Amino acid sequence: MPQYTPPLRDMQFVLHELLDAVGTLRQLPAHADLDVDTVNAVLEEGGKFASQVTAPLNLSGDKEGCVLDKTTHEVKAPKGFKEAYAQYVEGGWPALSCDPEYGGQGLPATVNLCFYEMLNSANQAWTMYPGLSHGAYEALHAHGTPEQKALYLPKLTSGQWTGTMCLTEPHCGTDLGLLRTKAEPQADGSYRISGQKIFISAGEHDLAENIVHLVLARLPDAPEGSKGISLFVVPKFIPQADGSLGARNGIFCSGLEHKMGIHANATCQMLLDGAIGWLVGQPNKGLMAMFVMMNAARLGVGNQSLGLTEVAYQNAVAYAKDRIQMRALSGPKALDKPADPIIVHPDVRKMLLTARAFAEGGRALTAYTALKLDVALNTDDEDERRAADDRVALLTPIIKAFLTDNGWLATSHCQQVFGGHGYIHEWGMEQFVRDARINMIYEGTNTVQSLDLLGRKVLGDNGAKLRAFGKEIAEFVEEHGISEEMQEFVNPLADLGDKVTKLSTEIGMKAFGNADEVGAAAVDYLRVVGHLCFAYLFARMAQVALAKKDGGDPFYTAKLHTARFYFAKLLPETATLIRTARAGLSPLMAMDEALF
Amino acid sequence: MPQYTPPLRDMQFVLHELLDAVGTLRQLPAHADLDVDTVNAVLEEGGKFASQVTAPLNLSGDKEGCVLDKTTHEVKAPKGFKEAYAQYVEGGWPALSCDPEYGGQGLPATVNLCFYEMLNSANQAWTMYPGLSHGAYEALHAHGTPEQKALYLPKLTSGQWTGTMCLTEPHCGTDLGLLRTKAEPQADGSYRISGQKIFISAGEHDLAENIVHLVLARLPDAPEGSKGISLFVVPKFIPQADGSLGARNGIFCSGLEHKMGIHANATCQMLLDGAIGWLVGQPNKGLMAMFVMMNAARLGVGNQSLGLTEVAYQNAVAYAKDRIQMRALSGPKALDKPADPIIVHPDVRKMLLTARAFAEGGRALTAYTALKLDVALNTDDEDERRAADDRVALLTPIIKAFLTDNGWLATSHCQQVFGGHGYIHEWGMEQFVRDARINMIYEGTNTVQSLDLLGRKVLGDNGAKLRAFGKEIAEFVEEHGISEEMQEFVNPLADLGDKVTKLSTEIGMKAFGNADEVGAAAVDYLRVVGHLCFAYLFARMAQVALAKKDGGDPFYTAKLHTARFYFAKLLPETATLIRTARAGLSPLMAMDEALF
Repeated sequence: MPQYTPPLRDMQFVLHELLDAVGTLRQLPAHADLDVDTVNAVLEEGGKFASQVTAPLNLSGDKEGCVLDKTTHEVKAPKGFKEAYAQYVEGGWPALSCDPEYGGQGLPATVNLCFYEMLNSANQAWTMYPGLSHGAYEALHAHGTPEQKALYLPKLTSGQWTGTMCLTEPHCGTDLGLLRTKAEPQADGSYRISGQKIFISAGEHDLAENIVHLVLARLPDAPEGSKGISLFVVPKFIPQADGSLGARNGIFCSGLEHKMGIHANATCQMLLDGAIGWLVGQPNKGLMAMFVMMNAARLGVGNQSLGLTEVAYQNAVAYAKDRIQMRALSGPKALDKPADPIIVHPDVRKMLLTARAFAEGGRALTAYTALKLDVALNTDDEDERRAADDRVALLTPIIKAFLTDNGWLATSHCQQVFGGHGYIHEWGMEQFVRDARINMIYEGTNTVQSLDLLGRKVLGDNGAKLRAFGKEIAEFVEEHGISEEMQEFVNPLADLGDKVTKLSTEIGMKAFGNADEVGAAAVDYLRVVGHLCFAYLFARMAQVALAKKDGGDPFYTAKLHTARFYFAKLLPETATLIRTARAGLSPLMAMDEALF
Repeated sequence: MPQYTPPLRDMQFVLHELLDAVGTLRQLPAHADLDVDTVNAVLEEGGKFASQVTAPLNLSGDKEGCVLDKTTHEVKAPKGFKEAYAQYVEGGWPALSCDPEYGGQGLPATVNLCFYEMLNSANQAWTMYPGLSHGAYEALHAHGTPEQKALYLPKLTSGQWTGTMCLTEPHCGTDLGLLRTKAEPQADGSYRISGQKIFISAGEHDLAENIVHLVLARLPDAPEGSKGISLFVVPKFIPQADGSLGARNGIFCSGLEHKMGIHANATCQMLLDGAIGWLVGQPNKGLMAMFVMMNAARLGVGNQSLGLTEVAYQNAVAYAKDRIQMRALSGPKALDKPADPIIVHPDVRKMLLTARAFAEGGRALTAYTALKLDVALNTDDEDERRAADDRVALLTPIIKAFLTDNGWLATSHCQQVFGGHGYIHEWGMEQFVRDARINMIYEGTNTVQSLDLLGRKVLGDNGAKLRAFGKEIAEFVEEHGISEEMQEFVNPLADLGDKVTKLSTEIGMKAFGNADEVGAAAVDYLRVVGHLCFAYLFARMAQVALAKKDGGDPFYTAKLHTARFYFAKLLPETATLIRTARAGLSPLMAMDEALF
């Protein structure tokens, strides 16, 4: 069974040494009293919960899966899941970054995302039960009436109830404008909602006494397409005014999907048969409300793959040090053994270091972005808020797509380190790969993310958000470009920055002629900008490590080696990506559809 | 459920129009009477068997898996597998490329590999039952005594019995020199063999009345390491002299592995408890004998991923034409529908064309290599034999590793085309990905293949085999470099040829200083040479298509588009690979093992 050790040292490095997160957060009224010790203590305790409570349930949960009772429509999660969730509620973890007004602890998103990285490493399928709740919490917090907030938020904050997002229907996922679920207004101000939803994660389960569904549906007079979609809250049991449970509502799990991975999370087909619901926010503005939540969810999905990358790396390292097989080509290393541990083989190291660099780069990028999110949510300074918001908007699709593509590569590399054993369930490595695969698909496929980045975030404002980020990078380059020992990091960073500028302009010009040029280049483009983010953050991490490495802590030496590996072996992917992005639309569209 | 249509037109193009396979084969005494109609008829019938008999069992077989009865040690394959195998035997398919002396039909390996591509598309797990038999057949055919051949080969040829290869043990896979299974000589010339084997594909099942295991074990006086390993034939039931079944032998399935994919193939732990066996070939030369078989097996594994790439492509195309979702960025295309079919989106086309180019390139490379194999096996001309043998030796690790890495990418892309539905079992796409994953691991991991290519096949003879292949490419470049319409294909091919020469020399020089430089570059190097093969074959295919496209058959237009896509969007991967190969060893080894 896989093991997991929370990477607290690297988290502390990123938060405190790289980003001075607490220093930034204390400038915000909501976090003025935060201190480093609190952050470290929360992460330490959170890491214990993840590694001791949910990690041991990951393999068994995958094997057992969820079971639907077709007569009662109740779903049973795998053994131990309910008890682990009770412990989670008991520990107050659902409240971590929730609003104190509703019983939350009010800690920053930055800390919550670090905590969730560990939960994701330990057990992605389990973590989706509380993770989805948080989405419902945010939707109600942002758009609910005072009464709705008072009724639902304390229960979601305590974890007594969980939540879902019900968007997808059989004929529409990406294109929610096509959705058909209907909401009929009732005399009492409520609505009767009917339709079928699919792919509803944590749609039904036995972890909590009630489930709060956030459902997209159409009003009778709604305009066609995406401008006619409204958001409704549809609880499994209708709460009484005092918060106690009332009647069972007409929203039922009618089937469970048999999936490639995340077997332990119940992916439900949900039937709404005149279910009672209440409008959340404005009529016909539901998609806008949902998109706010989906941005947070997209950061969360990138974070899922970050967690899987880390845990896969840890286990592959342990195996590579333990498994002996063949001698090093350069001659025997472990003379006391009949063969060398496989970590002596350069390609094994390449696979390990790829996962390590993806984990460390991904962690830095996630924390960097989460910190901007906390600023955007809490600052009183409008300019600062807008700048932070823009940065989050720019980086969110990159975190979703770049980190999940990287997670797929990394978990597969780590599986490969195990040879044949990597293909066998009991070692746990193949599960990481299967679980990681969904992250490239849900919450907007990675193609959709790339269109969001290039079409909306970059070209949509004529490159303003990208230029602002580029300015920050240029300042770093300016400041450290004169340092001899920083040359190896700063030079390729500056070079890539120039190339991104040029590439963005070039695609923008081509898109004037044919908008499909955006779609032809977007996926390659996103990975190029993802590498720009990683190159920038690895250069900054190297700068910190160079300043501290003489203190004797080998952590900084390792950080430098990982940064050098990144620049030597991973960043060069951009050489291909820039070529293929520039190759443009014609090689894709020249062939008539009938010839496929 | 996925559909499958045998790609007969493309196979005929490759065999007859690109390679003139029958013309080459008829020069060989064994195939002097072969004709195009026979080849086409065999492939047409083979395609019917694959698409009608085994393809419908693929999804259900994956869901059901194999079941071991722990008291009888018997394994039951999924529903329908036994009956499909009976039909296979009835149709005479096991005999296709077997020696006529033992009841075989004596058709060339080239035809057999095309037939197997279709079986692999239809159902990789089922195909492994007869596929493994063929390995045992070849080992006995090459190394068995006349008595052993007379006893076993007719039964393996008819398919009445199946076979296995028993190599791996819990502590050794790649490094067979460590193996511990023991063989004690008996007075009657037989041996008593004891030990434990794992990962034995088709090690036990209910498809055939007997299973012929080829087992690697050590004699009592054997030298340590890989020079002390002998090969034994260990039948499940000991055959009488007349071929009827005798006593049950002491070789038992003690457990089935729970795997990521190929669920319907029984991957067995085998316990040998004083099992009776007979030496095959010379004592202590078993590994050499086994390696001959393993080369054929490696071509077969590349062919498995080729099959999965093709079937995944076909289903993704069908879905992309059918599924409507969003409008094209350049404006609506299907005005009669509420959204456009997703094949209008450039990135969907990129994913489809990637799979298509990998399938067409892989098919051409496999057939090209198989034809050389037929020449090597059958020519009377020693120079021709050696040249053909060298080409097969050079290309085998490329087919194994390049095609299986491509298959992993392609099946994952095709899964992605399905969005959320790609993650659901019933659509079948996620199974292709899970099944494809093993192909990168077994029969020598892809890292091992890359070391075989760079260390043994290229540097091991100072580049002679590579130069001979380069000469063939240079002649093509010379011949077609003057054609204006061939420029777009010939120029990048010539350029890559030069780069491969330079890169090979450079790594060779570095390896003089440190042999680990080979391991640091090998995986990247293999993919570069893989692209050289594809670029060469796509250029040749384009040349044929250019000459014929004016005849009005749209097949040639499609072939040209696919070739152009390959050169524009896939070949540029070499820009990165050459950089990372040249980045060498230091970024991988600089970090102390303890810091991982």
